[in-house]
Amino acid sequence: MEREIREQPHALARLLEREGRRVRSIAHRLRQDPPPAIVLVARGSSDNAATYGRYLLETLLRIPTALAAPSVVTLYGARLRLQRMLVIGLSQSGRSPDVVRFVRAARAQGARTLALTNDPESPLAAAAEQTLCLQAGPEHSIAATKTYTAQLTLLSLLGAEVAQDAELLRAHTALPGWVDRALDTEGEVRELALRYRYLEECIVTSRGYPYATAREAALKLQETCGLVAEALPSSDLLHGPIAVVERGFPVLLISPPGRTLRHLRDVLDRLHRRNAETAVVSSEADVLQRATVPVPVPVRVPEVLSPHVYVVPMQWLSLHLARLRGRDPDRPPGLRKVTRVL
Amino acid sequence: MEREIREQPHALARLLEREGRRVRSIAHRLRQDPPPAIVLVARGSSDNAATYGRYLLETLLRIPTALAAPSVVTLYGARLRLQRMLVIGLSQSGRSPDVVRFVRAARAQGARTLALTNDPESPLAAAAEQTLCLQAGPEHSIAATKTYTAQLTLLSLLGAEVAQDAELLRAHTALPGWVDRALDTEGEVRELALRYRYLEECIVTSRGYPYATAREAALKLQETCGLVAEALPSSDLLHGPIAVVERGFPVLLISPPGRTLRHLRDVLDRLHRRNAETAVVSSEADVLQRATVPVPVPVRVPEVLSPHVYVVPMQWLSLHLARLRGRDPDRPPGLRKVTRVL
Repeated sequence: MEREIREQPHALARLLEREGRRVRSIAHRLRQDPPPAIVLVARGSSDNAATYGRYLLETLLRIPTALAAPSVVTLYGARLRLQRMLVIGLSQSGRSPDVVRFVRAARAQGARTLALTNDPESPLAAAAEQTLCLQAGPEHSIAATKTYTAQLTLLSLLGAEVAQDAELLRAHTALPGWVDRALDTEGEVRELALRYRYLEECIVTSRGYPYATAREAALKLQETCGLVAEALPSSDLLHGPIAVVERGFPVLLISPPGRTLRHLRDVLDRLHRRNAETAVVSSEADVLQRATVPVPVPVRVPEVLSPHVYVVPMQWLSLHLARLRGRDPDRPPGLRKVTRVL
Repeated sequence: MEREIREQPHALARLLEREGRRVRSIAHRLRQDPPPAIVLVARGSSDNAATYGRYLLETLLRIPTALAAPSVVTLYGARLRLQRMLVIGLSQSGRSPDVVRFVRAARAQGARTLALTNDPESPLAAAAEQTLCLQAGPEHSIAATKTYTAQLTLLSLLGAEVAQDAELLRAHTALPGWVDRALDTEGEVRELALRYRYLEECIVTSRGYPYATAREAALKLQETCGLVAEALPSSDLLHGPIAVVERGFPVLLISPPGRTLRHLRDVLDRLHRRNAETAVVSSEADVLQRATVPVPVPVRVPEVLSPHVYVVPMQWLSLHLARLRGRDPDRPPGLRKVTRVL
């Protein structure tokens, strides 16, 4: 896991170089004939990348985008009317049986289908009409790291190409460098891991684009550390779950600069009124100052690409906390690389 | 809260009587001109009802259905292309500002809009083209109970009417009686509440239709008891989060008869291999026998209507556990009836 975290800047640079042309060609066809709706289908970490893709594609392309509930197809056998819609299946291994089956069923119903996978020879790639490869190289750790940032990058690049968003396209060339800078958070994050050594439960929250990072952070902490970490959109947190927050209750906030920042500042104030202990991941001095534990991100990135960068300190946190707890982050008990659910 | 839980059989009978005709007329128009896609927009308990609606509408009508991320509109200002699509806003008060704003924006973009609310004079009802009323009477407790089962019932009735599903329509006439039978679980559930007196965290899980019940149970336990209760689809539980389950870790399974039962039996076995403590809510003897703590439901209902019935023991659990913990279930600290997020 440690090596794969460190490989990310290089892996993303390789991805941009190798898949850029194919992304452009797929984007060109989508621009000529835009789908009326998009459906993203995924499980686990890939579903967290899909959560990001959903905000991104709706905002950039104005196309209603859904996160699929594969059980509708695999359990209830529904044959969804998906004609002309775009169905994107995300799976690093390309072997999640329910994702493969959903994509196959969608194609049979007349959907256009696209696979995002690290294995272009996988059943998912075979099921979909077109495939984009994550170009991440073999991932040995059970906890996905470099394949997750590769999925985010393919989604943001595809969105930027379809929308012909010149600024966002340019920002992608800087992305490997930003992820490299984010690796420098390791020292500060290790201190947070020490503080969390005996932690049993926490909430991770954010909203909009960075909410995907909250979800992925919570999943990594569950998988590698056995921590009861619950991800909640900060808007939903205020609808009830905030009642669990009492004196000293730990809440992690993912707070990059951008549209979500003002709202997250309010959430932070409400959490402090309940005497929560907050850890804030941000490049912005004013929210960092308000945090119980600031986790400074040493580079200022646009909100739309913040998930690619802000997940890195959360990967460090999972790795170091797992080690401090005497767990092998590469082989969490009871998990396999490919999860078989049908 | 106690009174409102008990009112549910009566409230549902009234709803079926008073809104049946309007549901039929809306269903008739949807059948004549089916929308290419449906978007459900809601927060809190209403969003749990929407989770059910999504499985239901996709399975019954084969129409792709999305749960909206309101932030796409309220935070990023996206003007989604929703022409001819059906947008359903759910809010018991009709005053959740982001739900109202999403529905208003959708209508301006050419969507057909429908409000499901307990207040036909509310801003949500004004924003939507058509309104169905929950007919639940005033709800005083902050934790929604009878408005939640009313939302489920409007969704299942609407789905049944559009699909012209005679069996499901007939089943609705039995529904108030089933909910009444479910009230009889109070005694057994009170024992579970005693057992959970000092519990700090748990997972609530299920899949498909009954997954909505897992979400609503977790939210109620958070709101009224301050318990860190995490709802997870059982399919996702196996993708990582199961790593948090250690000896004695409490997991609540919502296991009505139907398509999900076989899968949930496997999940139960995997949880027991990790020495979890399971509480199983079911009418089925074989899964109840496997549970650490069986919570028998005294009536056998079709899976598609199980959320309306199985939520009742979960409401009892929240009520009694809150009391045992010295909390006022009607006024959880820090919550208001209408949550304002924009």
